Amino acid sequence: MSRILLLGAGRSASSLINYLLHHAPAEGWQLTVADVQPAHLAPVLAAHSEYAQAVPFDVHDESRLEKLVAEADVVVSMLPALFHAPVARACVRHGRHLATASYVSDEIRALGPAAEAAGVTLLMECGLDPGLDHMSAMRVLADIRAQGGRVTSFKSYCGGLLAPEAEAGNPWRYKFTWNPRNVVLAGQGTAKYLEQCRLRFIPYQQLFARLETVTVPGFGEFEGYANRDSLSYRAPYALDHVHTMLRGTLRRPGYCAAWQQLVRLGLTDDNVQLGNPASLTWAELVAAYLPLPTTAGQPLPARVAAHLGLAPDSVEMQQLSWLGLFDDIPVGQADATPAQLLEKLLTKKWALAPTDHDMIVMQHQFEYELNGQLHGRNSSVVVLGDDATHTAMAKTVGLPLGMAVRRLATGQLRQRGMVIPTLPELYEPILDELAAEYGIAFVEEELGILAAAQ
Amino acid sequence: MSRILLLGAGRSASSLINYLLHHAPAEGWQLTVADVQPAHLAPVLAAHSEYAQAVPFDVHDESRLEKLVAEADVVVSMLPALFHAPVARACVRHGRHLATASYVSDEIRALGPAAEAAGVTLLMECGLDPGLDHMSAMRVLADIRAQGGRVTSFKSYCGGLLAPEAEAGNPWRYKFTWNPRNVVLAGQGTAKYLEQCRLRFIPYQQLFARLETVTVPGFGEFEGYANRDSLSYRAPYALDHVHTMLRGTLRRPGYCAAWQQLVRLGLTDDNVQLGNPASLTWAELVAAYLPLPTTAGQPLPARVAAHLGLAPDSVEMQQLSWLGLFDDIPVGQADATPAQLLEKLLTKKWALAPTDHDMIVMQHQFEYELNGQLHGRNSSVVVLGDDATHTAMAKTVGLPLGMAVRRLATGQLRQRGMVIPTLPELYEPILDELAAEYGIAFVEEELGILAAAQ
Repeated sequence: MSRILLLGAGRSASSLINYLLHHAPAEGWQLTVADVQPAHLAPVLAAHSEYAQAVPFDVHDESRLEKLVAEADVVVSMLPALFHAPVARACVRHGRHLATASYVSDEIRALGPAAEAAGVTLLMECGLDPGLDHMSAMRVLADIRAQGGRVTSFKSYCGGLLAPEAEAGNPWRYKFTWNPRNVVLAGQGTAKYLEQCRLRFIPYQQLFARLETVTVPGFGEFEGYANRDSLSYRAPYALDHVHTMLRGTLRRPGYCAAWQQLVRLGLTDDNVQLGNPASLTWAELVAAYLPLPTTAGQPLPARVAAHLGLAPDSVEMQQLSWLGLFDDIPVGQADATPAQLLEKLLTKKWALAPTDHDMIVMQHQFEYELNGQLHGRNSSVVVLGDDATHTAMAKTVGLPLGMAVRRLATGQLRQRGMVIPTLPELYEPILDELAAEYGIAFVEEELGILAAAQ
Repeated sequence: MSRILLLGAGRSASSLINYLLHHAPAEGWQLTVADVQPAHLAPVLAAHSEYAQAVPFDVHDESRLEKLVAEADVVVSMLPALFHAPVARACVRHGRHLATASYVSDEIRALGPAAEAAGVTLLMECGLDPGLDHMSAMRVLADIRAQGGRVTSFKSYCGGLLAPEAEAGNPWRYKFTWNPRNVVLAGQGTAKYLEQCRLRFIPYQQLFARLETVTVPGFGEFEGYANRDSLSYRAPYALDHVHTMLRGTLRRPGYCAAWQQLVRLGLTDDNVQLGNPASLTWAELVAAYLPLPTTAGQPLPARVAAHLGLAPDSVEMQQLSWLGLFDDIPVGQADATPAQLLEKLLTKKWALAPTDHDMIVMQHQFEYELNGQLHGRNSSVVVLGDDATHTAMAKTVGLPLGMAVRRLATGQLRQRGMVIPTLPELYEPILDELAAEYGIAFVEEELGILAAAQ
């Protein structure tokens, strides 16, 4: 019998909980779901009371955390990433394994040796991105290497988007399917990647204007903008000698050109409190960013278009207008940052309707040298949400994590210390199970010979 | 007798030390200068050993700080601003007055009531900017109010620049006369000010393109860009109902247009470590920010000009080239932020020569309603450095501070708690002494009647 403790059961944990409940009877698991509001779990767990219980848990209660971890064999954390370090320390103290869908932080990395010494696995980055991206890329990389190929270029894109029919009537073709704040602040800083053996940098104010087009068979075109740090992925993928290395985020065509205008206006800055009253209107806020008009009476949209160098009837101007940026409606929050106000506005405009389905798109693009020739291969997956609970995001984050937990609980993962799913004993069975049981299968396209190798 | 303790005696304290030594015999002061390297003070203090001594002091040694403060009557701190809170707490504990040239921090502000209860004055913002700006603006504001005028617009500009003859051969007409890091990071965030009763915002990527021209009689033209927060100055200046309120920084014409290109390239970002080798050259770094060339063999300056939309022979391109941005010289620091690398480069290119003199320029611009008419008045000062030790910066920071200390030590300032020099009992004698003894005198220009009042 394994005792599995899940910390944090927000909406994004729906598919993970279902997966764990589904396998609990056969695997002999006892599942404890610890959440700040355990009452909402009652309907979910009702039919599974023999092997599942919900308990109250406040993340700031350290002694409670200690007790819960001590009583488990495997701990799964869906808490916000900043809480993972204390959880990991408790796991190492009590000799319990941990699995999360979050990035390895410096603190977690530093715990690796102590975990290894204690016979504990800290299994990180086991969700979608990071998670499924590692697994699917590593499988193709291993296949190319097994053939004797040498990878020279690796580009990888992922986006949490809308199912095509949910895009209707929305000129951005986008709604929030994940943390709105992260979308508003995306890309601030400088993006760095590698292209043709050269370091490449893109400053924030250029990021949404330097795009690549990505085509996914059956789903049309997307545009990709570079993620903040593509360089740090060379080592874990054993791509230290790769010529081109880029990770990017996907949006539907037209999104980035319009977002670029929000950046240019200054509406994504999160470092200044504006000292505004809550009654300030969006039209007044936008006007405050423009040079004062030289001719009186010019309407705001015309002033914005002139300031940004856009045609008044351009698609970008229509997208800005659709958001309500030029409307006499109050921003509704006093002394806020521009980014806070923008998030508040977008959260209304980009709210998923109950019938909307979301969509996850991921595509890896490989170039490799084999037998003196340069070959190309793409590997893509598209996942659609089932409904408002089992969204594509919840499935692609929760299912790989659940499957990784299952391998930990059944002793099939022997590696101790800090681990990410670049190991075949993790990614092979998980990718197989995702394809066979959930139809989440990567489709490969051989692009043939691109050129003679250089 | 008053015992005066000066904490921190870096280069910028030269004029302050001279002032205190000059007045010590007549005022009966005993001066203790506490510095991490007291040896360098020996030549300065040699002729003053009856009433002045230098002692070693490490800012991290709390018990030493406690003892030094206990043995003084008035403490003057020229330490970096972040050390002022522990110094102020020690002053309150021991009932000693404190004077600094630094901004009031939240911590210092919170100490105000305890200082007042202990009969202690925490006299902050008594240098140049903040300091002399408050004093000179308040005198004019008081004069306008005494006439029955109502101030509707207040703009105030200050810049630490080069004396005109030191600008020769330097297309930026600028060198570092103060903290280089602050110059490189200037304006990051969003500038906020008030114009014609409307909140106005300028995002960083627009800041150096939205300029006002400032003319100072006898010294020609300057350009001013907005400081980060002009709004918070309304309350201390009693300008709560002002229509226009702007504080800005002065540079010589052409500086901002070229700096704007550094911002656009991304070279002022301090939030990303580039992962670069120290051997990366400036030409390679700049090229890393550009889209890859579509035609081979195009020289770097031409690519930069095309990317920025500048003519290859434009003044801005000449300024960038003069810095060495297109040269095959190593950046010299591995895994640095762009801002760190730029600061390193500029510190070489913008180093003051031993014979260079610096220059401080300050101008206040007032508009006020009086007898149904709108009047204008400017108040300006230009201060030139005497030599490499007694720079204009050292004088304008140190002399107002020294004079404020003198008033504290002689009991002529009776206000207790946290104080800034917006009080007439401070600014009147200090402005008079600056003019009479040091020739630092503000020149007022009456601009006459601008319009009928609205």
